[in-house]
Amino acid sequence: MPNAVVSQSGGPTGVINASLVGVIEETHKYSEIDNLYGAIHAVEGIVKEDFIDLKKLGADVLEELAASPSSALGSSRAKPDAEYCEKILNVFKKRDIHYFFYIGGNDSANTCYIINNMASAAGYELRSFHIPKTVDNDLLVTDHCPGYGTAAKFVACALMGDDLDNRALPGIKIDVIMGRHAGFLTAASVLGKQRPNDGPHLVYVPERTVSMDKFCSDVESVYKKLGRCLVAVSEGICDTDGVVWAQKTAAQEEKDAHGNIQLSGSGSLADFLAAQAKTRVDIRRVRADTFGYLQRSFAGLQSPVDVTEARNCGRQAVIYSKSENSGSVAIRRTAGGKDYAVELFRTELANVAEKTKSMPDEFINAEGNGITNAFVEYAMPLVGPLPKTQYLGDYPRV
Amino acid sequence: MPNAVVSQSGGPTGVINASLVGVIEETHKYSEIDNLYGAIHAVEGIVKEDFIDLKKLGADVLEELAASPSSALGSSRAKPDAEYCEKILNVFKKRDIHYFFYIGGNDSANTCYIINNMASAAGYELRSFHIPKTVDNDLLVTDHCPGYGTAAKFVACALMGDDLDNRALPGIKIDVIMGRHAGFLTAASVLGKQRPNDGPHLVYVPERTVSMDKFCSDVESVYKKLGRCLVAVSEGICDTDGVVWAQKTAAQEEKDAHGNIQLSGSGSLADFLAAQAKTRVDIRRVRADTFGYLQRSFAGLQSPVDVTEARNCGRQAVIYSKSENSGSVAIRRTAGGKDYAVELFRTELANVAEKTKSMPDEFINAEGNGITNAFVEYAMPLVGPLPKTQYLGDYPRV
Repeated sequence: MPNAVVSQSGGPTGVINASLVGVIEETHKYSEIDNLYGAIHAVEGIVKEDFIDLKKLGADVLEELAASPSSALGSSRAKPDAEYCEKILNVFKKRDIHYFFYIGGNDSANTCYIINNMASAAGYELRSFHIPKTVDNDLLVTDHCPGYGTAAKFVACALMGDDLDNRALPGIKIDVIMGRHAGFLTAASVLGKQRPNDGPHLVYVPERTVSMDKFCSDVESVYKKLGRCLVAVSEGICDTDGVVWAQKTAAQEEKDAHGNIQLSGSGSLADFLAAQAKTRVDIRRVRADTFGYLQRSFAGLQSPVDVTEARNCGRQAVIYSKSENSGSVAIRRTAGGKDYAVELFRTELANVAEKTKSMPDEFINAEGNGITNAFVEYAMPLVGPLPKTQYLGDYPRV
Repeated sequence: MPNAVVSQSGGPTGVINASLVGVIEETHKYSEIDNLYGAIHAVEGIVKEDFIDLKKLGADVLEELAASPSSALGSSRAKPDAEYCEKILNVFKKRDIHYFFYIGGNDSANTCYIINNMASAAGYELRSFHIPKTVDNDLLVTDHCPGYGTAAKFVACALMGDDLDNRALPGIKIDVIMGRHAGFLTAASVLGKQRPNDGPHLVYVPERTVSMDKFCSDVESVYKKLGRCLVAVSEGICDTDGVVWAQKTAAQEEKDAHGNIQLSGSGSLADFLAAQAKTRVDIRRVRADTFGYLQRSFAGLQSPVDVTEARNCGRQAVIYSKSENSGSVAIRRTAGGKDYAVELFRTELANVAEKTKSMPDEFINAEGNGITNAFVEYAMPLVGPLPKTQYLGDYPRV
């Protein structure tokens, strides 16, 4: 009887466990799959045969699991090369694993792709399926990625609160949000705006370069008009020479396995931008926060739509594995706005592997310092309803 | 007919608007109070007669208001001296204001106290009531402060997520949490712990000094044992010479109106601690986050108990004003654990004004790097139930 393995890779999200639950519950329906192994710490767990038995988990555990943030099987930043993938395939052969479900980003899709090709070449029957997840929302083909809606909800709620805080104690406030190449998550900062002059008043995403002069004069201009200014900035924001600001400001230049410098887990970019604004604008009260890991792993704050879609993507991968050899699960939006609806479809692994998507031009304003209503229409259904807030400072005086 | 004024001072919280709603709804019941003015930006609004009419707000607005984070009337960091209070009293006389409700911390209680004494000396009939709020939970007399439970819930949910994130991608993670002199909010980092070895593994509060050597050796020791380490640190953490680490590390030394250096709104302490740990412990993956303003103003994440108590404190201030000249509303815990219950009582303004409370010794472990179960029993009812999470990495291997 063939076995299956599932694992989770890359940065955790708030719903990657919901996708795992989708895989588990759908697998229960197929008697032709014997064991469903959960590999601990992704490909590292596969090569070490560090497996747990996922079919043993009870219904209660599965529901708690679907609601838990982060990757319950553990994760890995490893980017397997051909030799590494060979080791994985050897474990598959040894353990009679003929189904491989991999929940992750574009690197994970690529790992699926490499291993599946190797298996084909070796004449080994393997069904490899990629289940998309990323808070960055930067995968190709799919309309949006599971994990994005939940992280976007965190960012939207944070900015709603921070804008009210900035109204209460006015000044300049700069929030640095995750996003190395794609500005989707930073753009979500505008989703909770309810009143005229609600912040963020300026939004900078990696899709547009900005000079420090332009940044400071933008801030100064808003501050002179409103007496306060709330700014959302992607960690991947680039100077006009194309170099990321974080690289110019970082004391340390730690690089990950992919050769990227560390952007998250440090407040240095936020502090640098705050110092620049303070120097330029005549105001003492300048504050900066870096949202860090809270935006991707926070307990008890999921987008319901995101959870459902993540779970369905996991189930769908198992369904596809009955009739197809490989693929990545993708989401197609069939209706927008209040009638928001989606359907899932299969795309080739090669269409997703190693590729990333940026925000389309129509989501960014002409000046490159704000987000358009087209983005709000796109993103709002993924986040779900946000709380309505009250601020009284604009009520008529007596 | 006498009028009343209410305003909000100091750092915003997640439920300071619930206290405002309590004042408004209770005032509606008393025909002897004519207008209820809301002063915009606290004492600054009073001296400028920058008032709105709070009795005009409809029931729907009040419910949205009670659920909104931050101070809906705006706030102020001003600390009025005698001359300033004289101006306030003059406005009270001019506007026939005979009821003063002030929602804030110990400085606000002091402002109430000064103005009330001035009014008595001048033979002006004034009822001055302080309604407690602070995320720091550092007011005297009261068992706990409205605003604390909601901020503690944010911190607990953040650490629950961050601990699962740290399990998924192990390393050293340092979280810097608000708290200049009191460690209550940082201590809340332990409230979501569910499994053996759940983090935070080390917690440092301002009530105990710590040398950088001790900090690093603690982190090293946990890392060697668990292969990861999650640390919660108060922004007010002090070196063994009594100087706050943030002061030793801050490039800038901005001071507020009270002569305190800026601790929040900068990532420099977190980055400094991360750099120290990285130098000392042989590991590349060290990350640091500073929770910043998110922990005090985040939309849609209130503790239900906290909201109810904050609202009741606002109502009770109005009730006391019928029969008493002045006071601060305080909370007495009449039962703990599952039977948690409180009653409100009045204390003299002088008992609360300008004073702060630290965590009692029994809440901190002997080594000064952890939080005891006595704290958990104290704080858990204030936060309310936290989500149960699942991590699968400790399940038996197959």
